[in-house]
Amino acid sequence: MPASPDLFSKVMALAKRRGFLWPSYEIYGGVAGFYDYGPMGSRLKNTLEALWRRYYVAGEGFAELAAPVIAPEAVFKASGHLEKFSDIMVECTKCGEAFRADHLLKELFPDERQPATMEDTAKMLKERAVRCPSCKGGLGEPYPFNLMFRTFIGPGIKRTGYLRPETAQTMFLDFGMLFRHFREKLPFGAVQIGRGYRNEIAPRQGIIRLREFNMAEAEVFFDPQKKTRHPRFGEVAMMRLHLVPNEGAEADLTLGEAVSKGIMVHESIAYFVGLTAKLLLEAGVDPARLRFRQHARDEMAHYAADCWDAETLLSFGWTEVVGVADRTCYDLEAHMKASGQDMRAFARFDEPATVEKTVISPVHNVLGPRYKKDAKAIAKALEALDACTLEGRDFAEVEIAGKNVRVEKDCFTVKKVSETVNGVWFTPHVIEPSYGIDRILYTILEHSYSEGEKEGEPYTVLRLRPAMAPIQAGVFPLTGKDELVVMAEDIARRLREAGIATYLDASDSIGRRYARMDEVGTPFCMTVDFDSLKDRTVTIRDRDSTRQIRVPAEGIAGTVGDLLAGRQTPFR
Amino acid sequence: MPASPDLFSKVMALAKRRGFLWPSYEIYGGVAGFYDYGPMGSRLKNTLEALWRRYYVAGEGFAELAAPVIAPEAVFKASGHLEKFSDIMVECTKCGEAFRADHLLKELFPDERQPATMEDTAKMLKERAVRCPSCKGGLGEPYPFNLMFRTFIGPGIKRTGYLRPETAQTMFLDFGMLFRHFREKLPFGAVQIGRGYRNEIAPRQGIIRLREFNMAEAEVFFDPQKKTRHPRFGEVAMMRLHLVPNEGAEADLTLGEAVSKGIMVHESIAYFVGLTAKLLLEAGVDPARLRFRQHARDEMAHYAADCWDAETLLSFGWTEVVGVADRTCYDLEAHMKASGQDMRAFARFDEPATVEKTVISPVHNVLGPRYKKDAKAIAKALEALDACTLEGRDFAEVEIAGKNVRVEKDCFTVKKVSETVNGVWFTPHVIEPSYGIDRILYTILEHSYSEGEKEGEPYTVLRLRPAMAPIQAGVFPLTGKDELVVMAEDIARRLREAGIATYLDASDSIGRRYARMDEVGTPFCMTVDFDSLKDRTVTIRDRDSTRQIRVPAEGIAGTVGDLLAGRQTPFR
Repeated sequence: MPASPDLFSKVMALAKRRGFLWPSYEIYGGVAGFYDYGPMGSRLKNTLEALWRRYYVAGEGFAELAAPVIAPEAVFKASGHLEKFSDIMVECTKCGEAFRADHLLKELFPDERQPATMEDTAKMLKERAVRCPSCKGGLGEPYPFNLMFRTFIGPGIKRTGYLRPETAQTMFLDFGMLFRHFREKLPFGAVQIGRGYRNEIAPRQGIIRLREFNMAEAEVFFDPQKKTRHPRFGEVAMMRLHLVPNEGAEADLTLGEAVSKGIMVHESIAYFVGLTAKLLLEAGVDPARLRFRQHARDEMAHYAADCWDAETLLSFGWTEVVGVADRTCYDLEAHMKASGQDMRAFARFDEPATVEKTVISPVHNVLGPRYKKDAKAIAKALEALDACTLEGRDFAEVEIAGKNVRVEKDCFTVKKVSETVNGVWFTPHVIEPSYGIDRILYTILEHSYSEGEKEGEPYTVLRLRPAMAPIQAGVFPLTGKDELVVMAEDIARRLREAGIATYLDASDSIGRRYARMDEVGTPFCMTVDFDSLKDRTVTIRDRDSTRQIRVPAEGIAGTVGDLLAGRQTPFR
Repeated sequence: MPASPDLFSKVMALAKRRGFLWPSYEIYGGVAGFYDYGPMGSRLKNTLEALWRRYYVAGEGFAELAAPVIAPEAVFKASGHLEKFSDIMVECTKCGEAFRADHLLKELFPDERQPATMEDTAKMLKERAVRCPSCKGGLGEPYPFNLMFRTFIGPGIKRTGYLRPETAQTMFLDFGMLFRHFREKLPFGAVQIGRGYRNEIAPRQGIIRLREFNMAEAEVFFDPQKKTRHPRFGEVAMMRLHLVPNEGAEADLTLGEAVSKGIMVHESIAYFVGLTAKLLLEAGVDPARLRFRQHARDEMAHYAADCWDAETLLSFGWTEVVGVADRTCYDLEAHMKASGQDMRAFARFDEPATVEKTVISPVHNVLGPRYKKDAKAIAKALEALDACTLEGRDFAEVEIAGKNVRVEKDCFTVKKVSETVNGVWFTPHVIEPSYGIDRILYTILEHSYSEGEKEGEPYTVLRLRPAMAPIQAGVFPLTGKDELVVMAEDIARRLREAGIATYLDASDSIGRRYARMDEVGTPFCMTVDFDSLKDRTVTIRDRDSTRQIRVPAEGIAGTVGDLLAGRQTPFR
């Protein structure tokens, strides 16, 4: 189905009608940026999260954590979110309405280069004499609006807390505990599935830009010397994906080619891009509407050195659903500095190694007379000096009380010494695949949405992958006759016992029952009719082809299980 | 193991050491009332939640929702939380420290009757001249401290939001959508598993009193005429439980006896008490340390008409872990009133019924001359009057502009008319089983904790039920020899493919590997030794008896599966 401007509203209408997504607090007029997952949506979300766990917990062997959403200010001061996690806002001086400056400028001047900094934003607003779109009043100075929800922990206002904008931070804070849990061996990964918060100024597009959203993140800790190679890269190297690098032309490339051509910086990023593509396709994203786009330099989050987004084509354009970022040692270094805790790892050599080290020693009886009261400080500074700074010159330079001091070579000696070391200390690097659960879920709905006509009426089918469907099997007794209902109930019970999500529907015409099941994406529906009572068979109807076959009721759970897993394909 | 004062600290130490529970934000000094579930704790929590879903979603057929944590003020204004969800606090006028008044009084006068209201608290603090326990300063007037975390939605401070203190409210708000989802048939249930928040003044006891906690709640909507009977009550009627009613002596009774003796008010409360007991026992709560206690009248939450708590005996006393409350129509009525939305259900009679109705009709040509400009308002008021208010008197009384007006009987006629009705409108009642996931999880840890001595050293075993264990099978190659490791890896892979949570451990002595697995509660550990290479057998060691058997490696996944499910019991 091609993207159409009203596809979004059609999908959202179906999602509401069939219990996938309900706007939150609707009886009180609603609050933008909040949605409830209804009975069907919540099942689809659970299935998607279970699929994610299959890849990242069972498949990769990563450890799942469940940490709080509220965190004290210290965490986000260290992480940089307090300073940098903000949008530029501007308010009308007349009516008081607040706007995101970038939205305002993009709407007014869609074809022009947009400002990236606060200064440039202020300048453009002024030069173009932008006025309030609501009341035409003048606009005030733009200012940064921090997007974290703020609260206070305990009584009073002494202890500020914020709702996490990402689940990642608590996994960095727990690095020491995790490292011990993994018996101090790298690489290892931690994951978290849960809520994230972003106090959007203008939430929009259903569940695409929520104020409270669901995310699944993995933080994979590497020895930076070893992240360029990934032991399982071979499993994804032949995958061909549509890539949009930040330099050069977009192209369909295998991940092996992307790494060898230097389009992807190393195997670890490429491995998680491949894993992401596999997972999204298994979840039901249309391969023709999936691409991976590298962030431009000025678009990258403050912590990232490289980032590739999985983007899906939705009715309103390409939309980020997953980010695979190389956060380097940024976060661990930041928390080490702020907390004073050591978060480094030790890379033990296979056997102790002898390393040569250059040692600078001050000559005190020259320094003393020459520098008087500064002599002690200069001696100390010389000892701390990295020997490489002497390269190519015959004097040293040290900083004393904010001033550079040139120290001649008679003031120190340089000696090479040998030292036996067992390994080296380093700060691990982090590769982070970060999944937006809501956005993937919406993509699945839109990419599965299909409509046509049936007997002159519009007819909608959600072509979900069978394993993802909130209801996997419908069971219909043809009429309300007792024997039919009893047999249908027995079949439904056996399906449920086999772990198949089953819905028994005995009301309205069979046509209307099919229509309801088609709208929630139920792949197979069984009808128990009067022949069933005689020969113990039922019809199974395939959602996508609408073809029917007659099968014995006897092994029904096995039959439906085979159909769901694609082990039998009688409808093709 | 009998309760002991240091059992709590031993369990928490094990929980931290083995990756069950880590105090949150520890590198920044920690924040009371917040805990991280580590890799083992998170698995145990997931397993517990999956068990809960098996009972409430698969078993009862209830619909799961996933609604936001942040809600606008209107919700909690209507629900009563804004007014009533608070603790009484008191602050020192000298050092400024804040205390919960009830904690302070209970500590100072443990054997005396404690005050329940603000006035009585103020009186007792004054009469007993209670002073600050920290600095001996005087205390100010006590005041209510609302326990909801507050934040602002969107920019500015115009829109107040709160973090939900329970998941229940969004299920009430969605009643209309849910009712349609269930094709307008009662009873039905909605459930939610997620975070709840309570800005405790003095959080304590590990994960027992958290500021951010995990809960699983079901809201079951009933026709109040039918809640006294429950269709599945027979399944639990013979369960014998230790009951502590709010009147009369505590006793071991079957639920059938409890209902027939009027100790439990109706079958629906009793059914969910029984379901709760089943679930808790299956999760690993010690039956000897479980009781159900009815709330005293003045202890009940503001919305509850009756409430039975599941309490478990922990090292610090009996502790509420689940509450089964009859919330009646309190919440739906409150939201109907506040939102103006109709949230009633219609009980259709089997066939239309003729009901007699008394109708009051104003006599306009008497009213007009007598009441002049008020005549119209009085006519309207008479029409709206319930006929029962006329009972026993020959005049009517109506309220006009805030004043009662006596209207003589010549101003109206009273007639009985027959009306055919198809049913009756009513507000559904709600029975709510509300589970504290963290408290149940802690109970499981404490009730499973067992210690003894081994070769003179203290030795700890977590006797978790096999189905609950975060690691279900340990696989140990006896030495690091390649062939042993390869065979062990093959066994581990086959176990994992069969869905068994498996940990392969190749380092340290076998004794230390057993010890680690015993501490996380792994029920079965396999060792691959040199004989294994010859005869393709491995030893399986049972955690609880420490006995070992030798089994073929061939069908190992089936063997371990049988052991986990209790289908084979070779160790008994």
